[in-house]
Amino acid sequence: MQAHDLVYHTLRATFSNERHLSIPFKEYTVIKVGIVGGTGYTGVELLRLLAQHPEVDVDVITSRSEAGLSVCNLYPNLRGHYDRLTFSEPDPARLGECDAVFFATPHGVAHALAGELLERGTRVIDLSADFRIADADEWSRWYGQPHGAPQLLDQAVYGLPEVNRQRIRGARLIAVPGCYPTAVQLGLLPLLEQGLIDIDRIIADCKTGVTGAGRGAKVGSLLAEAGESMKAYATSGHRHLPEIRQGLVHAAGAPVGLTFVPHLTPMIRGIHATLYGRLTGNADDLQALFEERYADEPAVDVMPPGSHPETRSVKGSNLCRLAVHRPADGDTVVVLSVIDNLVKGASGQALQNLNLMFGFPEMTGMQAPALLP
Amino acid sequence: MQAHDLVYHTLRATFSNERHLSIPFKEYTVIKVGIVGGTGYTGVELLRLLAQHPEVDVDVITSRSEAGLSVCNLYPNLRGHYDRLTFSEPDPARLGECDAVFFATPHGVAHALAGELLERGTRVIDLSADFRIADADEWSRWYGQPHGAPQLLDQAVYGLPEVNRQRIRGARLIAVPGCYPTAVQLGLLPLLEQGLIDIDRIIADCKTGVTGAGRGAKVGSLLAEAGESMKAYATSGHRHLPEIRQGLVHAAGAPVGLTFVPHLTPMIRGIHATLYGRLTGNADDLQALFEERYADEPAVDVMPPGSHPETRSVKGSNLCRLAVHRPADGDTVVVLSVIDNLVKGASGQALQNLNLMFGFPEMTGMQAPALLP
Amino acid sequence: MQAHDLVYHTLRATFSNERHLSIPFKEYTVIKVGIVGGTGYTGVELLRLLAQHPEVDVDVITSRSEAGLSVCNLYPNLRGHYDRLTFSEPDPARLGECDAVFFATPHGVAHALAGELLERGTRVIDLSADFRIADADEWSRWYGQPHGAPQLLDQAVYGLPEVNRQRIRGARLIAVPGCYPTAVQLGLLPLLEQGLIDIDRIIADCKTGVTGAGRGAKVGSLLAEAGESMKAYATSGHRHLPEIRQGLVHAAGAPVGLTFVPHLTPMIRGIHATLYGRLTGNADDLQALFEERYADEPAVDVMPPGSHPETRSVKGSNLCRLAVHRPADGDTVVVLSVIDNLVKGASGQALQNLNLMFGFPEMTGMQAPALLP
Amino acid sequence: MQAHDLVYHTLRATFSNERHLSIPFKEYTVIKVGIVGGTGYTGVELLRLLAQHPEVDVDVITSRSEAGLSVCNLYPNLRGHYDRLTFSEPDPARLGECDAVFFATPHGVAHALAGELLERGTRVIDLSADFRIADADEWSRWYGQPHGAPQLLDQAVYGLPEVNRQRIRGARLIAVPGCYPTAVQLGLLPLLEQGLIDIDRIIADCKTGVTGAGRGAKVGSLLAEAGESMKAYATSGHRHLPEIRQGLVHAAGAPVGLTFVPHLTPMIRGIHATLYGRLTGNADDLQALFEERYADEPAVDVMPPGSHPETRSVKGSNLCRLAVHRPADGDTVVVLSVIDNLVKGASGQALQNLNLMFGFPEMTGMQAPALLP
Repeated sequence: MQAHDLVYHTLRATFSNERHLSIPFKEYTVIKVGIVGGTGYTGVELLRLLAQHPEVDVDVITSRSEAGLSVCNLYPNLRGHYDRLTFSEPDPARLGECDAVFFATPHGVAHALAGELLERGTRVIDLSADFRIADADEWSRWYGQPHGAPQLLDQAVYGLPEVNRQRIRGARLIAVPGCYPTAVQLGLLPLLEQGLIDIDRIIADCKTGVTGAGRGAKVGSLLAEAGESMKAYATSGHRHLPEIRQGLVHAAGAPVGLTFVPHLTPMIRGIHATLYGRLTGNADDLQALFEERYADEPAVDVMPPGSHPETRSVKGSNLCRLAVHRPADGDTVVVLSVIDNLVKGASGQALQNLNLMFGFPEMTGMQAPALLP
Repeated sequence: MQAHDLVYHTLRATFSNERHLSIPFKEYTVIKVGIVGGTGYTGVELLRLLAQHPEVDVDVITSRSEAGLSVCNLYPNLRGHYDRLTFSEPDPARLGECDAVFFATPHGVAHALAGELLERGTRVIDLSADFRIADADEWSRWYGQPHGAPQLLDQAVYGLPEVNRQRIRGARLIAVPGCYPTAVQLGLLPLLEQGLIDIDRIIADCKTGVTGAGRGAKVGSLLAEAGESMKAYATSGHRHLPEIRQGLVHAAGAPVGLTFVPHLTPMIRGIHATLYGRLTGNADDLQALFEERYADEPAVDVMPPGSHPETRSVKGSNLCRLAVHRPADGDTVVVLSVIDNLVKGASGQALQNLNLMFGFPEMTGMQAPALLP
Repeated sequence: MQAHDLVYHTLRATFSNERHLSIPFKEYTVIKVGIVGGTGYTGVELLRLLAQHPEVDVDVITSRSEAGLSVCNLYPNLRGHYDRLTFSEPDPARLGECDAVFFATPHGVAHALAGELLERGTRVIDLSADFRIADADEWSRWYGQPHGAPQLLDQAVYGLPEVNRQRIRGARLIAVPGCYPTAVQLGLLPLLEQGLIDIDRIIADCKTGVTGAGRGAKVGSLLAEAGESMKAYATSGHRHLPEIRQGLVHAAGAPVGLTFVPHLTPMIRGIHATLYGRLTGNADDLQALFEERYADEPAVDVMPPGSHPETRSVKGSNLCRLAVHRPADGDTVVVLSVIDNLVKGASGQALQNLNLMFGFPEMTGMQAPALLP
Repeated sequence: MQAHDLVYHTLRATFSNERHLSIPFKEYTVIKVGIVGGTGYTGVELLRLLAQHPEVDVDVITSRSEAGLSVCNLYPNLRGHYDRLTFSEPDPARLGECDAVFFATPHGVAHALAGELLERGTRVIDLSADFRIADADEWSRWYGQPHGAPQLLDQAVYGLPEVNRQRIRGARLIAVPGCYPTAVQLGLLPLLEQGLIDIDRIIADCKTGVTGAGRGAKVGSLLAEAGESMKAYATSGHRHLPEIRQGLVHAAGAPVGLTFVPHLTPMIRGIHATLYGRLTGNADDLQALFEERYADEPAVDVMPPGSHPETRSVKGSNLCRLAVHRPADGDTVVVLSVIDNLVKGASGQALQNLNLMFGFPEMTGMQAPALLP
């Protein structure tokens, strides 16, 4: 294999075969990015997406455990794309030379490092939970440790473009939403913003693939344990609950009552959120409501009436596919929301944020259709 | 979702983050292609790859059973990419207006249509078995029916770029190799071309994912039947056997004795070929032999010594990853060869052929890393 | 393999290793049973369970499509157990010589045959939906055809032993509950019987493995389609909805409002029902409520507080495992209910009914632990 | 759930519904067994099988890591079967009160404990590799540590009933064969014993489910890593290689040349061995050869000519299913051999040995058909 064969300058690239616009040539400046904690699934997924991004160079990727190892040794699918990239010990000085740094780390790491990078002028895009909860005390209750950087919370922007696009464009610190929170919020926003459902009694029954549990070697994530089986978990309270609730409260403008039950599903990627609400407002055309709400959103696809989106229809892609149902024309609305937990639920959304922050077209690097079958 | 958000003209696209060559801008002419029999897995995979190809428009896609249906209805992963494309009845006149037509059909269909298209000046890239076997009688024996277009065999080029690149460039009719034949031939070519193994006794133990059986509704392909199980099949003689043998004979320049046992594996995509031969020639540096043989090949990746390539390392990508072993330094060589049966084993290889025929860089549309995990 | 090696008369057999009761020897009379429609998954599962039942001989098994074929040819796992059993054309006279006949057929077949068998004195245990709905008009609405045997509805007993044990003992015609209805009813009965939840607003979010769709060759059940993906289906109204509602109404003694959303899960066996209700009554000790309700039930296992039952914990066994949760001590109760859809959700429950009808210990043939992992 | 409902004394139990022999009642003495290292997959599988064995009580089960935990907490499928059984620290005195002790431990543990138990009169059935290799030096080379109990090797019997049944009956120390060695030896024995193949060049291409790697928390065994992929491993030399070779040498009466390549398959249970040999002797009726060799073997099932056994056909059962092929009537023989790696490849074979040692019918506890689908 020749590496340079993969270096192909697509001069008239388009990712639709339906229109070929003529636009003026412009020389973008390639930006340099770093990734802290690159050995996990969100790390490798960032690398996969960035390999298709023409304006971004991955300059540094860190891992304490794998320092010195070539990324292609750990992830052979990247051979030919990152042949010179090697995991290194995290070094704030070197990271600080990047235009932007992604944190693909367990919680707590971005607390410790983000401040210094921001001072050096580097933008920070944090895929962990460190800056998702606006209230530091609430964060501490759910994560069982003091908040490590409460002074940064003011400037942290919750990176859900469908809600915060303008703030993201000007942000220096992004809290990338969690996977469940993305799927649930996108499914409920139109209803909450219009005040159409009883906000005291919302149910989110969510199903995730096993990559949601990360790449850690846990018995419960073994193929022999998680395969051919289905189970709920964390019914008494999952860490994504306060994040989801915060987003719903923001949309509704009032406290909400939410029951959130996540389930582990025997598949690798994908989240399916099934959302239930009691209709209280005018629900004459829920389909139109959803279509209008997301008409201009590049990462949300409202399916035709009667659809049942499959998680595989978004596998590898930065899309949320939605369908809205009202069984037997009753007063219960059911929203079906699917994402790829590693893309729109993590690395893709992180890249969508970066694209917004640096003025690239929002879906750059993520135009390919989902891999199906 | 806005369709035009997916229309992004990548002006400085590069798919490696390691080098940014400066090359002159050139206006390619977009070509028009058709797909006959587009409802199966090789059809949808062609559409997925072509959506990432900047120089190709899919003008027509045919299906007798689904005529009138939008392709995005059948394959929701394509929403936003082919919103105006609808399956139509096969019409030679309309197909004949395309620069090239892919056949993603059961055997026999290309026999019936290819001649007329060739006469109209359309290039034909046949993913079926119709033109793979040079000997029409041999073809008839294995397919149980008369060969429908023996007069075209002379101009049919076997589309394995690693063997026939120059002939492919000038070809008008391509027989895209089968999935097993691709994995097996690429694994054995270096050994056969150098006369290093006993050609009377070659063993190819091959494992395929279930998409190898197509999208037909067969009981044996149900998740409840093929899941959580492994079995061999067609031990007495699989239709890919004569095709593989033909390729090996060509490489060896002599008759070969081949035992080929395919196995059905509980996964969706991927072929793993495990190849066994008895070393008879100088086998001092098999690793170097393989690396040199494929040094200039963009679609073949020789892994480092001691590697065990996983099928998932090529999932969705047009690569064959190879490793060569000599257990206990004995006289048996073991080659491990993995491909994605739908990409390098079918649609990707078909597109690689089209790229060669029309002068596009050979891997255009297929530069993305494999989807892993 | 010697067939007679598998014929082992377990003279002191016990299926717990904890106690060895001394009970008097008694000569049971072996009964003869027939199976109509034995080629599907509920048919082969009946055969698997009956092979472990010491008091039952399978005398006849019918299949129009496979008449003449040995059952062991179709299901090699049965080799050594049913070497002389062959599918035959359905023949009421021959079936009428059986003590009991199972119908493992699509709807409509039992309508046509049950009456004649009952007249011949044969008990009928129908695994299809034919006699589950007490109201023939309601049945017709959901199944799109006239009810074929309304005159038999009076004597049909709904075969949920946890509700109807005494009636089952004396029944001649059993309607074996559906898979979803079993999981949902067992999870909700204690709450409804005690009037503890708001019956206007019950939500049943259910996940099934693909065997729920049967052994028919459907594209949607292919491993390549249903694998590695999750989707809801039939949100507008599944045929199990009226059956579930009928059971809940019976338990509550009043109309209920039920939202039922089934999901297809990438696994072979298993149903996970996640049930949501709003607590209105005294819910001080839901755990005790469930434990007491099912204290004497051999096929229901109430898990300890805080449990999350996995579907694999009942794979191959005739158990429903339940856990009851009250997140954040709020007013929402969440019940998790898992069964093997082919056992407690079909063939096992059918056998449980037969055991009750013929005076065998209720779990005979189904004492083995679930297969885990 | 009532535990005593699961205590059912099957007085006329038979596991075939085809014959009901009349045999005299006999009061067996229930034996007491212990399990050392019961938390792994072979441990829980032993418990599953022993729950169906009427003559065996599990008296003690040890685990250093889980001491004090109820086995049903770790393995909920066992609830109702072992409600009083708790993991305890290994205690030779207590284990020495058992009639037999199974070791389901990593290598080295049985070396340390077996001697003391044998002195106390307890029979030892070792599922680990500690006593499989007759040559202590060979063992040390492959396991990288000194052999811990070479003085016991003389009395250790290799527990493959199809070869050593008489010696097993009188044995005090059993080395239960490995999973790959069982599948490979059973597939090759008829050919080697009759001298029909070239013993210098035998190929065993083997595919295993992930439980073969045990229940340890390893990244490579995660569903997200091992799912939807296939790979070879240990091509340079797997620890089962010397064990297989030893068995083949014993059968052939001469040194053999063996190439053994194991593969990791995305399924939970099952081994599929595909075996290749060059025919040198009279191979007129290979089918008859296999049928005759295994005519009296309760755990080996020779399939009809042309068969392709599936691993699922033996899931949960103590059977090896074999098919023998001679493609194109050439001089290559292909044997297909499937087992459940946790049953005939481990715990079931261990129990088969115990049954032989204590005079129980050989398949006691393992008469149920495989779980299919």
